Amino acid sequence: MSVSEYFNEIGVAVREASRIISAADSNQKNLALVEIGQALNAARKDILSANKMDLEAGQAKGLDAALMDRLELNDDRIDAMIEGLQQVAALPDPVGEITDLSYRPSGIQIGKMRVPLGVIGIIYESRPNVTIDAAALCLKSGNASVLRGGSESINSNRAIAKCIASGLAAAGLPEATVVVVDSPDREIVGLMISSPEAIDIIVPRGGKGLIERISNNASVPVIKHLEGNCHLYAHSDADIEQALTLCVNAKTHRYGVCNAMESLLVHADIAADFLPKLAELYLEKGVEIRGCERTLSLLASESAVAASEQDWSEEYLAPVISIRVMDSLDEAISHINRYGSGHTDGVICQDYSVSRRFTREVDSSSVLVNASTRFADGFEYGLGAEIGISTDKIHVRGPVGLEGLTSQKWLVLGEGHIRS
Amino acid sequence: MSVSEYFNEIGVAVREASRIISAADSNQKNLALVEIGQALNAARKDILSANKMDLEAGQAKGLDAALMDRLELNDDRIDAMIEGLQQVAALPDPVGEITDLSYRPSGIQIGKMRVPLGVIGIIYESRPNVTIDAAALCLKSGNASVLRGGSESINSNRAIAKCIASGLAAAGLPEATVVVVDSPDREIVGLMISSPEAIDIIVPRGGKGLIERISNNASVPVIKHLEGNCHLYAHSDADIEQALTLCVNAKTHRYGVCNAMESLLVHADIAADFLPKLAELYLEKGVEIRGCERTLSLLASESAVAASEQDWSEEYLAPVISIRVMDSLDEAISHINRYGSGHTDGVICQDYSVSRRFTREVDSSSVLVNASTRFADGFEYGLGAEIGISTDKIHVRGPVGLEGLTSQKWLVLGEGHIRS
Repeated sequence: MSVSEYFNEIGVAVREASRIISAADSNQKNLALVEIGQALNAARKDILSANKMDLEAGQAKGLDAALMDRLELNDDRIDAMIEGLQQVAALPDPVGEITDLSYRPSGIQIGKMRVPLGVIGIIYESRPNVTIDAAALCLKSGNASVLRGGSESINSNRAIAKCIASGLAAAGLPEATVVVVDSPDREIVGLMISSPEAIDIIVPRGGKGLIERISNNASVPVIKHLEGNCHLYAHSDADIEQALTLCVNAKTHRYGVCNAMESLLVHADIAADFLPKLAELYLEKGVEIRGCERTLSLLASESAVAASEQDWSEEYLAPVISIRVMDSLDEAISHINRYGSGHTDGVICQDYSVSRRFTREVDSSSVLVNASTRFADGFEYGLGAEIGISTDKIHVRGPVGLEGLTSQKWLVLGEGHIRS
Repeated sequence: MSVSEYFNEIGVAVREASRIISAADSNQKNLALVEIGQALNAARKDILSANKMDLEAGQAKGLDAALMDRLELNDDRIDAMIEGLQQVAALPDPVGEITDLSYRPSGIQIGKMRVPLGVIGIIYESRPNVTIDAAALCLKSGNASVLRGGSESINSNRAIAKCIASGLAAAGLPEATVVVVDSPDREIVGLMISSPEAIDIIVPRGGKGLIERISNNASVPVIKHLEGNCHLYAHSDADIEQALTLCVNAKTHRYGVCNAMESLLVHADIAADFLPKLAELYLEKGVEIRGCERTLSLLASESAVAASEQDWSEEYLAPVISIRVMDSLDEAISHINRYGSGHTDGVICQDYSVSRRFTREVDSSSVLVNASTRFADGFEYGLGAEIGISTDKIHVRGPVGLEGLTSQKWLVLGEGHIRS
C-alpha cells in the first residue's frame, strides 16, 4: 500500500470516528481515558522494551543528549501519563455546553452550543508522552485525532497505540477515534497538512523550525506555537524587592521554556539602584547579561556585554538575558510590541494607570502585572491541561486547553417562527 | 509608484493606525462613526455623481442587471448607510471587556480581555455600501482595515473614502485607520492575502468563486463564507400546518440569499399527506421541485421533476428546491452532514428527543428547531450587524459581528507572585 493510499484509509476512518466521538457522552469518553491508563499500566514491560529499541536506534544515529532525554520512557514517566489521563477524565466536558440562550424580539430563542472541531492532526517530535497527552485532550473535547510522532520514537508510539486502541475498544468507541500514524515516511506530514477533507486543524508541537515549515505549507488551519520572547518591564515606581524576586524567578526558574523571561526593560529612574542588585543575583546564577549602553554604564564591566540589535528579538532558552533602559512607559510598550513575540509580557509597577495602560496596549497572548512570566501555562490558568500555547490571535490565543479544541454553533429554537 | 510600493506604504500606515485604534475609547470611535455619516450626508451630490460614472462605465462594459443593481447608489441607499453607521455606534463596545477574572490557588488572578485582531482586509465585489458597513464594524471593534472593492465601483468608493477620511479626522483618528484601496490593479488582492505583516485576517465578501480563489491562495487567515445549502427536515410528528408555513417562508421569502432553504427532507410517515399540500403552495409561488423517486410518486407529474445526485449538493439561489423522503431521523442527520454545506439546517418536530439529537448531531453553523432558516442572520441573532456568515469552524462560526473581529488575551494580576 502506498503512503497516500494508507493516508486515504486513515482519512475516511477518522472522519467517520469523529462523528461518533462528537456525539459520545462524557461517561463514555472518561471511561476510555481511564481504560487507556489501565492498559498502559498493564503494558509497562512492552512499552519499556519498545522504548529501549528507540533509544538504541537513537544512540546509533547519534541523537544529542537533550533529544535522547525527551525520547526516554521509564516507570515515572508512564505513571505521569496515567495520571495525566485521570486528570483529563476529571475535567468538565466542554462539549454540548449551551450558553447565552435568550429570547429575541421575534420570539425565537438564540444561543450557542460548544461543539468539537472534528479531526485534529498533531505533529510532534521525539517525546512519546505527547502521544497520550494529545490523545486525551482530543478525545475529551469530542474530537478524533491523527497523531504523527517523530520517526525516532516509532516503536514506543506503536506500543502506546496498542494501549489506546484497547482502551477505546473497552469503552465501545471506534479504534479510529485516535489514529497513531504507523509510518516513518515524511510524506504523511505533507498529506496531513494539505487534506482538509480528513483533518480540520493542525497543532504542531516542537521547535520553531518545525512549526514554521508546517505553517508555510499548510492548507489546513494551524494553531501555531512560535517563540516566546517574553519581557518584564520594571516601571519607575516598581517595588525593588518585588522586582528582584520576579526577575530572578522569570529568568532562572527554568531556562528552556517558552515562558521564561528573555528581555528585561527597566525605567531610567530606578536603573541605577535596581540593575546592580539584579546583576549580582544573576551572576550567582550564571546568567549572562547583554545590555544597552546605559545598562553597561551602570554595571561592572565583567557582569555584562553589549547587546546587539538582534538581541532584542532573541529567544535564548538559556541563561542569557537582554536588558535595556527605558525613559517611559510608552517607550516600553513600543519596544515590546516591536521586538516581542506576542507570547507573555508583564509590567512591575504600583501605579494604577500604568498597569491599566500596559495591560490594554501590550499586544501579547498573556499580559501580566507584578507576576512572573512563568505563570503563562494551562495548569496555572486553570485549564487543567494544555496542548500548546498559541501565539496566534485567530481562533485561540495563549494556553490551549479543551475549549481551544472546540467551536461554537448557533442554536435557534422556535415554535413555527418565520421571518417577515 | 509601483503597486507593491503602494501596498507597502499602506501596510506600514495601517499597522501603525491599528495600534492607535486598538487603544481608542468608545466615545472616540462612536464620534468617528457619526462624523462619517454626517460627511456622507453632506457629500450626497458628489457620491451620486461618482456613482453615475461607475454606472455608465458598467453599462459600457455590459455588466448584467443584478450587478448594475448592486452597484447603484441613490438617496435611500445613502440613508441606509448613514443609519447603519448610527446603529454600529449604538452597539456595545466589545474591546477591553474582561471576563472570568478569578483567583487561582496560587493567589494570582486570571481573566480574559477582549482585544481587536489588528488589521482586517476586506475584499468585495460591486456593492459600494459594503465600504461603509465594513469600515464601521472594523472601526468599532478597534481594528484598522484595508478595503478593496471591485474595480467597477472605484469612483463611488473614492467619494465614500473621502467621507470616511473626513469623519476619522474630525474624531482625531489617523486617516489610515480605514484604507480604501485606490487602485484597480488586481495585484493588490494578491498582496493583501499574502502579507501577514500588514494584514491579520481576510474577510472576502462575494460569490463562491471569489472566496475559493482567495482561500486557496491566501497565507493570511481567511474567514470564509461559502455556500448555504440549507435544509429543513420535517420529522414524522411535525405539525403539518407549521411545517407548511416554515417551508414556504424558508424557500420563498427571498431566493438569492445564503440562508434560503435549498433542500427539504420529509419523513416517510407524513410525506403522502404533507408533500402534495406543499407542492400546491410552491406551484403558486412558481417554485420548481426536484424530487427523489418517492417524492415524485406522491406528486402530480407536472409539479416535480427528478432530482439528480448533484441536486442534493446544490445551492440554487433561485425558485428551485430539492425534496427527498427519509425513513428516519438518523438518515436525515446523515444526509445533511454529507450533502449540506454546514451553514444552516433545521428540524420540524414535536418530539423532545428528536430535537435534542438533531441539534447536537447536525454539524452546521446554525441548527434550528421549528424555525425558518431565514433567521440565520446577524441582526436576528442580536449581533447588531454582520460582516458575513462564516462556514468555517475555526475562530468564528455563523454570523460574524463585532465579537468575531476580536480575540481574547489572558490577563494575569499578582502582587509579586512567582512560580515555585
